[in-house]
Amino acid sequence: MFKKILIANRGEIALRVIRTCKEMGIKSVAVYSTADADSLHVKFADEAVCIGPAPSSESYLKISNIISAAEITNADAIHPGYGFLSENAKFSKICEEHNIKFIGASAEMINRMGDKASARATMIEAGVPVVPGSDGVLDTYEDAEKLAEEMGYPVMLKATSGGGGKGMRAVWEQESLRKGWDDARQESMASFNDDTMYMEKLIQEPRHIEIQVVGDSYGKACHLSERDCSVQRRHQKLTEEVPSPFMTKKLRKDMGEAAVKAAEYIKYEGAGTVEFLVDKHRNFYFMEMNTRIQVEHPITEQVIDFDLIREQILVAAGVPISGKNYEPKLHSIECRINAEDPHNGFRPSPGRIETLHAPGGHGVRLDTHVYAGYSIPPNYDSMIAKLITTAQTREEAINKMKRALDEFVIEGIKTTIPFHRQLMDNPDYVAGNYTTKFMEDFEMQA
Amino acid sequence: MFKKILIANRGEIALRVIRTCKEMGIKSVAVYSTADADSLHVKFADEAVCIGPAPSSESYLKISNIISAAEITNADAIHPGYGFLSENAKFSKICEEHNIKFIGASAEMINRMGDKASARATMIEAGVPVVPGSDGVLDTYEDAEKLAEEMGYPVMLKATSGGGGKGMRAVWEQESLRKGWDDARQESMASFNDDTMYMEKLIQEPRHIEIQVVGDSYGKACHLSERDCSVQRRHQKLTEEVPSPFMTKKLRKDMGEAAVKAAEYIKYEGAGTVEFLVDKHRNFYFMEMNTRIQVEHPITEQVIDFDLIREQILVAAGVPISGKNYEPKLHSIECRINAEDPHNGFRPSPGRIETLHAPGGHGVRLDTHVYAGYSIPPNYDSMIAKLITTAQTREEAINKMKRALDEFVIEGIKTTIPFHRQLMDNPDYVAGNYTTKFMEDFEMQA
Repeated sequence: MFKKILIANRGEIALRVIRTCKEMGIKSVAVYSTADADSLHVKFADEAVCIGPAPSSESYLKISNIISAAEITNADAIHPGYGFLSENAKFSKICEEHNIKFIGASAEMINRMGDKASARATMIEAGVPVVPGSDGVLDTYEDAEKLAEEMGYPVMLKATSGGGGKGMRAVWEQESLRKGWDDARQESMASFNDDTMYMEKLIQEPRHIEIQVVGDSYGKACHLSERDCSVQRRHQKLTEEVPSPFMTKKLRKDMGEAAVKAAEYIKYEGAGTVEFLVDKHRNFYFMEMNTRIQVEHPITEQVIDFDLIREQILVAAGVPISGKNYEPKLHSIECRINAEDPHNGFRPSPGRIETLHAPGGHGVRLDTHVYAGYSIPPNYDSMIAKLITTAQTREEAINKMKRALDEFVIEGIKTTIPFHRQLMDNPDYVAGNYTTKFMEDFEMQA
Repeated sequence: MFKKILIANRGEIALRVIRTCKEMGIKSVAVYSTADADSLHVKFADEAVCIGPAPSSESYLKISNIISAAEITNADAIHPGYGFLSENAKFSKICEEHNIKFIGASAEMINRMGDKASARATMIEAGVPVVPGSDGVLDTYEDAEKLAEEMGYPVMLKATSGGGGKGMRAVWEQESLRKGWDDARQESMASFNDDTMYMEKLIQEPRHIEIQVVGDSYGKACHLSERDCSVQRRHQKLTEEVPSPFMTKKLRKDMGEAAVKAAEYIKYEGAGTVEFLVDKHRNFYFMEMNTRIQVEHPITEQVIDFDLIREQILVAAGVPISGKNYEPKLHSIECRINAEDPHNGFRPSPGRIETLHAPGGHGVRLDTHVYAGYSIPPNYDSMIAKLITTAQTREEAINKMKRALDEFVIEGIKTTIPFHRQLMDNPDYVAGNYTTKFMEDFEMQA
């Protein structure tokens, strides 16, 4: 087993990893930027090394500084958390070259899964369903028509150079294809000086449902059921839950098997997440694979009763996994508490936390690195806490979340607590009736 | 279901009950003495009524004031928590007379189980093992000799008027009985002017292991496995755990069956606890039954995944129980954090909490009514928090407790946190090798 792990991250995930290290009797090394000197991850680690000034590019993303910190402190492994260098193939490789175990995916796996086209090709090879679409650029309108006929309508035309919604057209039947094609090309040419197009099947009422997998160094993988992360704002997840209210036993079995197939095909080691889009007919399509721990991993821990960070460390140390797949026996919900003003377009609200009272009691878990008197630096992600409630049923977990949100006092800054309160009362959310489009129609009440 | 529950208690248990009321959509009424105006249970309840000055006898024990508060607020049920009026038959009866549902045992059950002699007689009738002993006073030495022979040595001679260890003699073999008999009688005569004696079997290396039961109004009871509460100081529990490190599958089955037999014999309704002494040979003997929720109930909730306060409320509302017995699938430990100075004979340390930082993360639960800036009144029990950790194994739960204790910051008063830190490192405790005598030999390190 490792003797000392350096955590190449900050905030709640750094603290999360330190906690498990302590519980496993492994020494921990925190690294921090000058902006984070007062952070709890620095206080609770066995050792702490300053790796640079506030900007991430000069600290948390500065590979040379992190490797130096690991060498100075004699750390034999590095846990990258999420974000920052967690999916950086170069960093994974440099750790390996320095004989420091990277608790995450190998450079090869990161490369294979990090690039969209390569991940898609790999999944097709592995037999995992991907969103049907053209094999690269469509040469002519006739090709577009033929493919749309094959895949079935509706389809989505996408400009190769497109972005921000420009050069995209949803087409619902053959009669509209010509106009969509011409309009999208014209728009793309005007915006990007490029009118090459490709096509994908349009996913109706899409849900973002991901499968947590764990693979070991002996080629074995298993899945730990799903997380529904459809409540997103500009691709940022706001709340997650397990089980997904949209899930069926059959769908979990099928998605779980596909995720395990994906993981075993690439001989995936460690904790990873296979993200799928699920349409209203419960067809599911591979979106991407995150070769790291996810922000929302605690809800999985709550329903399977074990520690995923511990599992990552064990797998990295060569311990085989049990190989057992898990069905969630409880219901767990996470609300991401961000230092943002939900009444003002979720604008970041860094500053000093004057008062903090944490909710507690039965079925309540709080993961946070902040405390009363802590000043949130403006340099990083605005998430300051993850509030997780767990109960026997979804209704109970929602009610528990409501009372925990009511108990949660944070003064001095704005937070997303009022948003989550309103979300937990929203009839569509309560009914489990939401897709990735949910936030487009959501309006905060005064 | 009840519309509004008055909680006739204070501190963490009042908050505990309010939380479940909120989660069940039931309105809650807090009562408080003038010393508790700033308590969280007052802030978090839907309504709050002051019921008198600081002394319990004039507030939390004042039945007329509590009934008035319930009538003023139209509460249709009262939850008594633990302590105070929770096992007061008169209170239970008065609630009934006022048509307010008492969420606890009936006056008859409380009377039956509240008196030691009557509880013992009832358990003998029910076929539950009690500590063998004389049927009242021993008339002659010859009677003592005969009974000791029947029960087997060692035995304990006890003066009827005895107390504080006076008039008590442990006798290990027949040769010493005469001397023990004469010495104990003489001592008792000198101290209490009374030399009548009775005899009990001496329980060797006793452990305090209790079984949580739940009974419904249809005569059905079930057990939710055990709690080991042997670590006690002057009969005050300091820490509890489930499973007991001394437990075996067979012992749990036998003790569980005995506890269910006891509960069903008296047609027990609600949550109750049957306390047993278990000797080193794993013989177990009924000690007493607590006809209320226990302080240490959270560790049971952690390993069975449901809310015991909710269960109490459901049973009181006439909902039948599932009747299923539970085996603990996880390991859970509770440390009682008291405002006491463990380096100074556990002397109470009331005062103002200047700083409070709560531990959190995976497998950590905190039940507390205190917060930064809260002043602990000197009038009541010194317990200010219950820290509970839960994991797959006992070793992991202990390690988790250690790191949670390390994170727990309370400044301004002395607490028992340093004691629990040392306990979690104590080789006998870690080995699970402890009896109710454990604290007699425990010495705090500087």
